[in-house]
Amino acid sequence: MSLHPLDSSAALEPELLCIFGTGDLGRSLGQRLLQSGYRVVYGSRRPNSCGPLPQGAQVMTHQEAAQSANLIFICVHREHYEFLGTLAPHLDRKVLVDLSNNLKKNLYPEANAAYLQRLVPKAAVVKGLNTLSAWALQNGLLAGKQVYLCGNDEEAKHAVAEMATKLGLTVLDRGSLSAAREIEDFPLRLFPEWRLPLCIAVDLTAFFFFYLLIRDVIYAYVENGDEISFRIMVSLANKVNTFPIRVSNRVSHHAVSLLPARLYCCLPPALQRDQLIFACSRRFPDWLDRWMLCRKQMGLVALGFAFLHAIYTFIIPIRYAVRHKLISRVLKNQTTPFHFDNTEAWGTDSFYALGILGFFLYVLLGLTSLPSVGGSLSWREFSFIQSKLGYLTLFICTAHGYIYGWDKFLSRATYKWYTPPAFMLCLIVPSVVLVLKFIIIIPCVDRTLMRIRQGWERTPPRRETDDVKFTNL
Amino acid sequence: MSLHPLDSSAALEPELLCIFGTGDLGRSLGQRLLQSGYRVVYGSRRPNSCGPLPQGAQVMTHQEAAQSANLIFICVHREHYEFLGTLAPHLDRKVLVDLSNNLKKNLYPEANAAYLQRLVPKAAVVKGLNTLSAWALQNGLLAGKQVYLCGNDEEAKHAVAEMATKLGLTVLDRGSLSAAREIEDFPLRLFPEWRLPLCIAVDLTAFFFFYLLIRDVIYAYVENGDEISFRIMVSLANKVNTFPIRVSNRVSHHAVSLLPARLYCCLPPALQRDQLIFACSRRFPDWLDRWMLCRKQMGLVALGFAFLHAIYTFIIPIRYAVRHKLISRVLKNQTTPFHFDNTEAWGTDSFYALGILGFFLYVLLGLTSLPSVGGSLSWREFSFIQSKLGYLTLFICTAHGYIYGWDKFLSRATYKWYTPPAFMLCLIVPSVVLVLKFIIIIPCVDRTLMRIRQGWERTPPRRETDDVKFTNL
Amino acid sequence: MSLHPLDSSAALEPELLCIFGTGDLGRSLGQRLLQSGYRVVYGSRRPNSCGPLPQGAQVMTHQEAAQSANLIFICVHREHYEFLGTLAPHLDRKVLVDLSNNLKKNLYPEANAAYLQRLVPKAAVVKGLNTLSAWALQNGLLAGKQVYLCGNDEEAKHAVAEMATKLGLTVLDRGSLSAAREIEDFPLRLFPEWRLPLCIAVDLTAFFFFYLLIRDVIYAYVENGDEISFRIMVSLANKVNTFPIRVSNRVSHHAVSLLPARLYCCLPPALQRDQLIFACSRRFPDWLDRWMLCRKQMGLVALGFAFLHAIYTFIIPIRYAVRHKLISRVLKNQTTPFHFDNTEAWGTDSFYALGILGFFLYVLLGLTSLPSVGGSLSWREFSFIQSKLGYLTLFICTAHGYIYGWDKFLSRATYKWYTPPAFMLCLIVPSVVLVLKFIIIIPCVDRTLMRIRQGWERTPPRRETDDVKFTNL
Repeated sequence: MSLHPLDSSAALEPELLCIFGTGDLGRSLGQRLLQSGYRVVYGSRRPNSCGPLPQGAQVMTHQEAAQSANLIFICVHREHYEFLGTLAPHLDRKVLVDLSNNLKKNLYPEANAAYLQRLVPKAAVVKGLNTLSAWALQNGLLAGKQVYLCGNDEEAKHAVAEMATKLGLTVLDRGSLSAAREIEDFPLRLFPEWRLPLCIAVDLTAFFFFYLLIRDVIYAYVENGDEISFRIMVSLANKVNTFPIRVSNRVSHHAVSLLPARLYCCLPPALQRDQLIFACSRRFPDWLDRWMLCRKQMGLVALGFAFLHAIYTFIIPIRYAVRHKLISRVLKNQTTPFHFDNTEAWGTDSFYALGILGFFLYVLLGLTSLPSVGGSLSWREFSFIQSKLGYLTLFICTAHGYIYGWDKFLSRATYKWYTPPAFMLCLIVPSVVLVLKFIIIIPCVDRTLMRIRQGWERTPPRRETDDVKFTNL
Repeated sequence: MSLHPLDSSAALEPELLCIFGTGDLGRSLGQRLLQSGYRVVYGSRRPNSCGPLPQGAQVMTHQEAAQSANLIFICVHREHYEFLGTLAPHLDRKVLVDLSNNLKKNLYPEANAAYLQRLVPKAAVVKGLNTLSAWALQNGLLAGKQVYLCGNDEEAKHAVAEMATKLGLTVLDRGSLSAAREIEDFPLRLFPEWRLPLCIAVDLTAFFFFYLLIRDVIYAYVENGDEISFRIMVSLANKVNTFPIRVSNRVSHHAVSLLPARLYCCLPPALQRDQLIFACSRRFPDWLDRWMLCRKQMGLVALGFAFLHAIYTFIIPIRYAVRHKLISRVLKNQTTPFHFDNTEAWGTDSFYALGILGFFLYVLLGLTSLPSVGGSLSWREFSFIQSKLGYLTLFICTAHGYIYGWDKFLSRATYKWYTPPAFMLCLIVPSVVLVLKFIIIIPCVDRTLMRIRQGWERTPPRRETDDVKFTNL
Repeated sequence: MSLHPLDSSAALEPELLCIFGTGDLGRSLGQRLLQSGYRVVYGSRRPNSCGPLPQGAQVMTHQEAAQSANLIFICVHREHYEFLGTLAPHLDRKVLVDLSNNLKKNLYPEANAAYLQRLVPKAAVVKGLNTLSAWALQNGLLAGKQVYLCGNDEEAKHAVAEMATKLGLTVLDRGSLSAAREIEDFPLRLFPEWRLPLCIAVDLTAFFFFYLLIRDVIYAYVENGDEISFRIMVSLANKVNTFPIRVSNRVSHHAVSLLPARLYCCLPPALQRDQLIFACSRRFPDWLDRWMLCRKQMGLVALGFAFLHAIYTFIIPIRYAVRHKLISRVLKNQTTPFHFDNTEAWGTDSFYALGILGFFLYVLLGLTSLPSVGGSLSWREFSFIQSKLGYLTLFICTAHGYIYGWDKFLSRATYKWYTPPAFMLCLIVPSVVLVLKFIIIIPCVDRTLMRIRQGWERTPPRRETDDVKFTNL
C-alpha cells in the first residue's frame, strides 16, 4: 500500500523565487508566493534594515539574491532601474518579471520593460502581472483574475505563466515585448467604453436644458413677466432628466441597438447581389461596431437618469413652490365649488403606474448588467431579458410619455413660440423604434431576416459543389 | 547557472489546433487560442475569400486543415454538417469538438453531437464549450467560467479539458455522449428555478387583485354609488403589492423555509421509531426539495414587490385624487376646529418607520443574494444574514402590518360584506410562522431539534458495535 | 497520424478516491468528484442501507473503502471520530482530508484535524476544503473559489492541492497542521471587518439621538409645554440618520481616509531626520492600519444611512403631522395675503437638488464596492471613482448641509439652550476634511507629497554608493 498518486511529484523541494524591492507590492507578492508553496528571497540595498518582510522569506543583497534564483520579480519604480544595469553580469539568462506601472501614459519614450531589456540585454524580460495591486495580493483576491504577459523569450514566458497559474491567476499571452507598452497602459485606462455614452448623455442633457430654459423660464419671463428661475433646480432638472432616459433607453438595450445591425444585414444582399458568400462578409461598419460595444454603458447611463428622475419626482410634494401653489389654490378655490374629475384621476394614476413599472423593469435590466449576475445567465435567459424585457420597458416608458401628453397634443397653448414641448421631442425616437420593431416582428419579415442571419443566400452559388449550403456560425 | 525550472517543458513548440467555420464564434475562439499560445489553422470552403481572421492564424481548405491538426473545433451550424460526412476519411481518429447550439429545444430528433458522431463514426466527438459566447471569448471573460464536456472517448475528453483549462475555464465532465442533448439544452434554459416563485406570485397577485376590486371598488359602487374605479391603477395596485410581499417574505427566506424542513425532521423518528438510522434516511419529500431550491427566487420576488410597494407609497402625495381630497378636506374643515391627535401621529409615524426599516433590511437581504456578494460570505455570516436578519425583517414587516390595522380589527366597518380586509388575510401566514419560530427557539425544543439534526438516534441501534454513535454530516 | 497531444497522459484510468460519511456534504462532494472524472467509493457503517448516493459511486464498509484508496475525505462530525481510531491500522500512510467544521469557536481544546492526527498518527492528515458548502458543491459554484489547506506532510498536501485544482478551486497553502484551528474558525467568522464601522455608527447614532431628543422634544416640552414626542419615530430618526452619513461619509472613502495616512507620511521624515531610509520604514501605526482596512465598510454603512435618509425624506408629505400642519397653515393664512418668496424657492430647491445628486453619487460609489464590479475596474478607474468622485460627493453633501442652514447660522433661535443644532455639529468634520484636502492639492504641497510617497529622501544617505536613488514601490 503506497502513496502512488503522489509518486509522480517526487522532487517536492519548493522552487526559490527572488523579489527585488521590499515595498508594498514586493512584500505582498512575497507573502502570496510563500502561501502558494514557493521559497522567497528578497534582494535589497540594505539587507539588514529594510522593515518587516513576510515570515519565511530571506533577505540578501541584490547580487546574492540574483545568483540564488532564476526568476526575479522587479518590484521597483522605473526611476530606479539604473542599478539593474550595474547588476547585469549577474542577471545573465535570468527571467526578469517587470511588474512596474507608470503614473501617467506616455511618460517615457519606451515601455518600462523595453528599457529594462536594454539595460540587461542578456536576461529574458517578461512584462506582466502589473494589473495586480498589493491590496488584492494581500487579501487573496486573485482567484480567476486575468493577467497579461508578454516577452520575447517563450521559455521565460512559460515559466512565469506556470507560476501565475499556481497563484490562481488566468494568464493571457500578448506576444512579444513590443506589447509591453499596451500592457503598461492597461492599469491607466479610464473608462474608454464609457466615453461615447457619456458624451451623448451630456450633449442631450445640455440641449434639453437650454431648450427647456428658453421654453419654460425665459418664455414665462418675456411673455408674462413671471420670475420663475427657481424652477431650474428641480422641475427643469427633472424634465431634463427624462429625455436622455428616453432617448438613450430606446437606443441602448440589446434588441433596439440590434435594429440598425439587423437592418444593415438585410440591405447588403439586396444591394450586392453578386456577392456570393454573404455570411462571411457580413462585417459591420465601424460606427455600428462602436455603437454595439457601448450598448451596455448606454443602458446604464439611462438607468442613472431614470433613477434621478424617480427621486426628483418623489420630492415634488415637499418643495416650497409646490406647497405654496397648493395653499394658494385652496385659498382661491374657497368660494368656487371644486369638482372631482374622474378622467383626470384615471389619467394621472395610469401615468404614475406606468412610470413605476417602467422604472422597476429598468432596475431589473440594470441588475442583469452586473458582471456576476449576467455571467450566471444562460444565453437564452440573457437574450430574453435584454430583448423581450427591453422592448416591454421601452413600450411602457413610451406609453408613460404619451399619457403625460394625451390632452396636450392638440392644445394650442402647448406650442409656446411655435416649438413643441420637450416631451414630444423625446417621444419621436422611441415611437420610430417601436414602429420599426413592429414591422420586423410581422411573420413574413421575421422569417426572411432569420434566414439572412443564418447565412441564407438568395442566389445559389455556382462553382461550389460539396459545401453549397454550408455557412459559418 | 541554467534555467532549470524551465527544463521540464522542453518541447515548447506550441500545439496546432484547427477550427472549421470562420463565423463570429470561430474567429473569437481562434483569437483566444492564439492569445493562450496555441497555433491556429482555419478550415474554410473558400480559403481565399472569407473575411478578416485573427492575426497569426492560417487558412486552408477543410481537408488540408483537418490533416494538419488533431483537435478540430466545429464552429458551424448543424444545418451544414453534411459536408463533414464527405470529409470523414480525413477525420479518422481526430478529436472533433462540437460547439454548436440550436435555436430551440427538440428541434432535431438527436443531439447535434450524436448526429456528428454518426456522420464521422471514426472520429472522437466531444460535445462542450457551447455555453461560451463569441462575445465572452472576445472580451476575455472566461476566467473561472464553468464549461461542460461529454464524449465517449476518455482520451479525447482529457485533451479538450486540458486545452480548456489553459484558456482559464473550469471543466466539468458530464460523462458519455448521451449527455450531449442535456449540454445542448443548457444555453436554452429559461429561468427554470423562477417558475414556481413567479407562479405563486402571479396567483397571489391575481387573487388579491380581485378580492380588493370587489371589496374596495365594487362595494363602493353598489352600496354608495361612488365611481372610484381610478383607484385600480395606484391604490389598489399598491395594496395588491403588499400581500405577495408579506406572504412570500414569510415563506421565502432561509430560516422560514427551513421551518417545514425542520418540522419534517422532527416527525419521522417519532412516527417511524423502528427505523434505526435516521440521519441516513433523512430525505426530504419532493415538494419540500423543490421548495427549498426556489427559496432564493421567492425572496427576490418578494423584494421586487417590496420595491414596487415603496415607490407606490412615495408617489401618493402627488396623485390628483389625494390632492383633491386634501383640498376638499381643508374646505370642509374651514369652520370646525381641527384637533391634532397625538396618538394618531405616533401610530402613523411608527407605521412608516417600521416600513422603512423593513424595506431597508429587505434590500440588505437582497444584496446578499448577488452571487459575488454571497460568495464572499463565510458560512456563519451567510446563515446569520439569512436567518437572524431574515426573522428580524419578518418581525418588523409583521409589526408594520399590525400597526396599520391596530384600530381596525374590532371596528365593524372594516368587515365589508362580512369579508376581512386584505391586510388581515396576509397577516395570517407571518403570524403563524412567528409563533412556530417562537416555539422552536424555546430552549428545550431547540435542544431536541439540534440533536436530531446532528443525527441523534432515540433508540440505540443494536447489531452495530464499533460505530454506534457515528453519523454523517 | 496519431493523437500525439494525448500521448503524455497515457494511463488515463481515473483515480479512486474514498469518502467517509454519506451525509449531505459527502454526497455532494462525491457527485462533484465523479463529474470531474474521478472514481469514488464511500465508506459507510451500513453499506446496504444508507440512502441514495451519486450514480457511479460504490459503497463499502469503512475498512474496505480505506484499503482501496489512498486519499480519504472525512465528511463526518468530529463527535464521531472515535471509530477512526479503531480503523487506524488500515489508514497507515493514507492521506486523510479533514473537512469538518464546528458549530462554535473554541468548542474543543484542540483543532479537529489535530485530534484526527492524534487518533491516526500514521496517516497524513490534511485540513482543508472546509469552507465549501454542500450547496455550492451541488450547484457547481466552485469555479475560482479560494480554499485553504494545511498539513504536516508536503506530499499529501500536494496531492490534495492537485485534486482541488482539478475541481476548479484555487488553493492556498497555510503551512503545517498547527494552522488547522485558524482554518476551522474561518467559516465561523462573523463580519470581523464590520465591527469597527458598526460600532462607530451605533455610537454616533446614539449620541445624536439623545442630543436631538433633548434639543427637539424635551426643549419643546420644557419651554413651551408642547407634547411632540411622536416626532421621535420619523423626523428625529431622519435627522439622526443624516449625521452618521455625513461623518462616516467624510471619513470613509478612499481619498479622505488616506488623508491621515498621507499626513502621517509627511511627518516622520521631519521628526525623525536621522532615519535614513524613509520609504522602507514607512509603516503605519496599528490604529491607522485598522482604519484603512475598514474604509470600504465605513462607506457602505454611510450608504445605508443615506438610503434611510432618502426614504425618510420621501415619506414626509404623507405623514399625519405634516398634513395636519399644512391644513392648519392654510386655515390660518386664509385672511393674510400669502407671499411667494423667490429666494426661499431657490434655497429649498437647491437643497433638494444637491441632496439628490449626492445620493446618486453615493449609490455609484456603493456599486463599485460590489466585488464583481470593483474587480473589473482598472487601477486608475478605481482610484478615480474612489478619490475624485469621493471628494465630489463629499463636497456636494457638505454644500447640501450648508444650504440647509444658510439662514440659521446667525439666528439666535437656532441655539436652543446654547447648544448648536446637530446639523452644524456634523458639518465640522467634512469642512475640516475639505479644507485639508484643499491645502493638499495646492501644487507645491502636492509635489512634495508625491515625492515622499515615491520614497524621496531629504538627506541623501551616506555609506551607500551605487544604489542611492533606488527605493521600493
